[in-house]
Amino acid sequence: MNKQIRNAAPTNDQITRGALPGSRKTYVEGVPFREVPLSGGEPPVRLYDTSGPYTDGNVKIDIQKGLAPVRREWILARGDVEEYEGRLRRPEDDGLRDGELLSVPQFDRAGRKPLRAKPGKRVSQLEYARAGVITKEMEYIAVRENLGRSALADGESFGANIPQVMTPEFVRSEIARGRAIIPANINHPETEPMIIGRNFLTKVNANIGNSIVTSGAAEEVEKLVWSIRWGGDTVMDLSTGRHIHTIREWIIRNSPVPIGTVPIYQALEKVGGVAEELTWDIYRDTLIEQCEQGVDYFTVHAGVRLAHIPLTANRVTGIVSRGGSILAKWCLAHHRENFLYTHFEEICELLGQYDVSFSLGDGLRPGSTADANDAAQFGELETLGELNRIAQRHNVQVMIEGPGHVPMHKIKENMDRQLAACDEAPFYTLGPLTTDVAPGYDHITSAIGAAMIGWFGTAMLCYVTPKEHLGLPDRNDVKDGVIAYRIAAHAADLAKGHPSARIWDDAISKARFEFRWRDQFALAMDPETAEAFHDETLPADGAKVAHFCSMCGPKFCSMKISQEVRDYARGTNDTLSSEQIRAAMAKKSAEFREAGSEIYLPKTAAE
Amino acid sequence: MNKQIRNAAPTNDQITRGALPGSRKTYVEGVPFREVPLSGGEPPVRLYDTSGPYTDGNVKIDIQKGLAPVRREWILARGDVEEYEGRLRRPEDDGLRDGELLSVPQFDRAGRKPLRAKPGKRVSQLEYARAGVITKEMEYIAVRENLGRSALADGESFGANIPQVMTPEFVRSEIARGRAIIPANINHPETEPMIIGRNFLTKVNANIGNSIVTSGAAEEVEKLVWSIRWGGDTVMDLSTGRHIHTIREWIIRNSPVPIGTVPIYQALEKVGGVAEELTWDIYRDTLIEQCEQGVDYFTVHAGVRLAHIPLTANRVTGIVSRGGSILAKWCLAHHRENFLYTHFEEICELLGQYDVSFSLGDGLRPGSTADANDAAQFGELETLGELNRIAQRHNVQVMIEGPGHVPMHKIKENMDRQLAACDEAPFYTLGPLTTDVAPGYDHITSAIGAAMIGWFGTAMLCYVTPKEHLGLPDRNDVKDGVIAYRIAAHAADLAKGHPSARIWDDAISKARFEFRWRDQFALAMDPETAEAFHDETLPADGAKVAHFCSMCGPKFCSMKISQEVRDYARGTNDTLSSEQIRAAMAKKSAEFREAGSEIYLPKTAAE
Repeated sequence: MNKQIRNAAPTNDQITRGALPGSRKTYVEGVPFREVPLSGGEPPVRLYDTSGPYTDGNVKIDIQKGLAPVRREWILARGDVEEYEGRLRRPEDDGLRDGELLSVPQFDRAGRKPLRAKPGKRVSQLEYARAGVITKEMEYIAVRENLGRSALADGESFGANIPQVMTPEFVRSEIARGRAIIPANINHPETEPMIIGRNFLTKVNANIGNSIVTSGAAEEVEKLVWSIRWGGDTVMDLSTGRHIHTIREWIIRNSPVPIGTVPIYQALEKVGGVAEELTWDIYRDTLIEQCEQGVDYFTVHAGVRLAHIPLTANRVTGIVSRGGSILAKWCLAHHRENFLYTHFEEICELLGQYDVSFSLGDGLRPGSTADANDAAQFGELETLGELNRIAQRHNVQVMIEGPGHVPMHKIKENMDRQLAACDEAPFYTLGPLTTDVAPGYDHITSAIGAAMIGWFGTAMLCYVTPKEHLGLPDRNDVKDGVIAYRIAAHAADLAKGHPSARIWDDAISKARFEFRWRDQFALAMDPETAEAFHDETLPADGAKVAHFCSMCGPKFCSMKISQEVRDYARGTNDTLSSEQIRAAMAKKSAEFREAGSEIYLPKTAAE
Repeated sequence: MNKQIRNAAPTNDQITRGALPGSRKTYVEGVPFREVPLSGGEPPVRLYDTSGPYTDGNVKIDIQKGLAPVRREWILARGDVEEYEGRLRRPEDDGLRDGELLSVPQFDRAGRKPLRAKPGKRVSQLEYARAGVITKEMEYIAVRENLGRSALADGESFGANIPQVMTPEFVRSEIARGRAIIPANINHPETEPMIIGRNFLTKVNANIGNSIVTSGAAEEVEKLVWSIRWGGDTVMDLSTGRHIHTIREWIIRNSPVPIGTVPIYQALEKVGGVAEELTWDIYRDTLIEQCEQGVDYFTVHAGVRLAHIPLTANRVTGIVSRGGSILAKWCLAHHRENFLYTHFEEICELLGQYDVSFSLGDGLRPGSTADANDAAQFGELETLGELNRIAQRHNVQVMIEGPGHVPMHKIKENMDRQLAACDEAPFYTLGPLTTDVAPGYDHITSAIGAAMIGWFGTAMLCYVTPKEHLGLPDRNDVKDGVIAYRIAAHAADLAKGHPSARIWDDAISKARFEFRWRDQFALAMDPETAEAFHDETLPADGAKVAHFCSMCGPKFCSMKISQEVRDYARGTNDTLSSEQIRAAMAKKSAEFREAGSEIYLPKTAAE
């Protein structure tokens, strides 16, 4: 197309490093956190940290070598896996035609061979959980999710079951119940384990990927690092076109978060983009290729059944999922049932050997508010519920994909039906976008829906960037999308009553109220933007410690006054009668006037 | 402070003119609409238009003269007003000290004197409505709100009463019931009448205003034009500091939308910023000054009662409303009841002479999620309900201010209590912000809450810009804030089931599905951004008519495939048995393969 494919190898100086301003990396039992030290005698605040070693200045990063395979010894210690030669690389894995040469450098695996389960074994976290085994991954997650947990905050969790203190046993039980998953391919030992389930913190997925019209390996690795820096819990590589295998290898080897893919995209490349030429063999071979590389979860559109397809005919926007439309085309061309559906048990057997999780794709998700909650969407959801039960029998971990475009009054029905149809398997939704009319701002149209469905019980929110419907996201779009979704996820956690969510809000609000500007910036979801915006109006360094802000100016300040009110009203409280309050306040009133009615006391005097 | 006050007079070339790309101004019975002509034989779509004459290329704009006083003859024809000399201008109206000269040019009123009610008369729309009179303003609003109304879309309106067709009588009855207001000062005849009420389209307010640290008259007039261009239904002038009277005059004379203010801000300037020196006389004089200028609604913090103040003492963020803290300070210093509360009936009498509406301020709104829905907030709300009943007895129009920072699970309680306490008087809420942790992105944290509370029944949403808590919004921030809130308001209308809301969504989704790129841009809430984002990825002009987009590229396109599915499935529909569908699809399958399984048919053939 219009732009040249840029195939430069990723180099270390292209990768964003260093902690967020005002934050530092800390570890508790080996689990990383973003810790924000505060002034004014306040204790530091620990925040969940998705950013991996890239934000730890003490870790040497060399993306040519990849991250340290921290989980490898855990995996080997379980004694149920073996190394093997693995599938042979083929030019078509990279979408190359006969004789065409790869123009992207290879990641050097340094002889590392793939792992798979020993014959007769299944190595999924679900298998272990049901056997009563608490894995290292589960222990890690208990520490990670337990973050600052104190008294349970108030909230409405719609029947979720959020414990007071997160224990490894609780993690295990939720996995065993099929209500949470740990995406953790044994061939992706570089991950910092994380969990997706409605009784845990709400997670965010960011999509990256090249495309035949733009991008190369260098940008994709940096997009990964960039999106986890701002809070992506998992990343989907949606690459299409050439170099797909090679780019994915660069991403996985450098990713501390689980990587998801849609294998049918690569399978389609292998048949030259002609959907009806897809076969089970080609698809299966692609699954093996990606299982060996270390992909942690696969979107599998096995719910797009032949019988559902006519249900989309009268929609305003038909089928908008790329995977859904590929399979619809295949079904129509062959007039046969979706081969992913008919081969589903074989897929289960395969995934269980590597612990790849299913993300059961919603190929018929609505692409407009008009099509929300229709027979096609809910018909597919019922099928996903059926497939979930099959996968559960194979002890393969499952999450269920959902929404798309859904107006607010139809969001909760999606969640309720999913919980019922899919036995509370984790829901993983795109948005939903709550209106169709604002292209260019769909991170916002969808953050509204995402916050709501997250509150109602969705376990992971797939981000939408401002470029949705218009173009491919660049660096700024990825950041804007991730931040909008972190906001949605955090708002959901707060509304559900996650205690650790409330700690963060209270710490930043207290800093704001006390004019600890630097603490406010440091505690911000995006410290860089917070400080830059403040500097635009009040760039002077003195303004960072000023007891006012640009809204009211130095002459008058509502926060300052209300701090005065607090001092004033001290001694009056709820336990006093209204008569006593009146008396106390009259006394205070006199003192206040005697002191000169001055609110702009020096900071030391005011405290 | 750091920046010089820029006092240049506003000139016409500083003002943004012209229709949005792809839209044109059209009038129905004198009421303006944004009309979007479409290709492909589709009928044009009419959208609500807040932008005033600035987007009509046929109207000559001269901001030195102000907009045409279109309502003046309606007002005079009612025979109940008289011109009078009006209050004498004083230097302190502009915050000037003795001998200091005004450095901002005066707007030339060309001898126009203020109007007020004849003795013994009240001239509010509420007075007329209760007398059974349908005013010109009500007729205008019926046309304006009726926009594209057809069959009532599905939705959940939480007990609202949205009619199938908007009639002038329905408008009158909602006003008479106190459930909607038309902010329309008789001294602001330049307005295009609009209505605020839960059975009408959800409205958006934008705040502008200078401050002692930034800005001057020129920027403020352009901010007005800019914010209504993107969808501000009303604008509040929150100016403080010097030149406050003069800047307001420039704004009002050039504003086609109602202007709101917080008169206590100006009153405070008149006493040198010392809250305890405020008096009823100074405040009353300020009200008269602003009534004569043409302010359409006043935020009056009469609900901040002395007894409520101690309730804020244990809050995380005390009192964060500027007006609330001014009055709290006054109450504490004097240990007396808030003088706005004790003089409330006098204020009612005054406002009824000009038809200024109350916006009863929530001086105790929560400034952090921790403080949401507490005794202070709801105590004040009960007082606002009491004040509403008093104002209703005086036939003065009222809306009630609300939220602030409220986590999602506490939003609906705000709406439900407001409806009960305030007899369904229109609710006008700031946000609410659903979390405190994302300074720099509070247009998003609050768009989530705004969409929800709008759906639940809030009539007007007060915007929050990305600079909230950090600095003063610039031009881009104002646009970002307005767009985020238009999204929230539209998502609310869609969820409530407003038929005109659904028409817009369906039109843009159909354009998207049919690859009518230019139609999609033209129908976008922000056509400029939509087209610019598309151009970043696919700048070629040919891409504007391409049957693909950058997400999947030309080789594979899910929208195109699903259009194929639709063609394919035509002949199979819900009225057929599943057996018949299977038969029809088998036939189609054969045809499809015979035709070469080609999805990239030329456009003419596909249609």
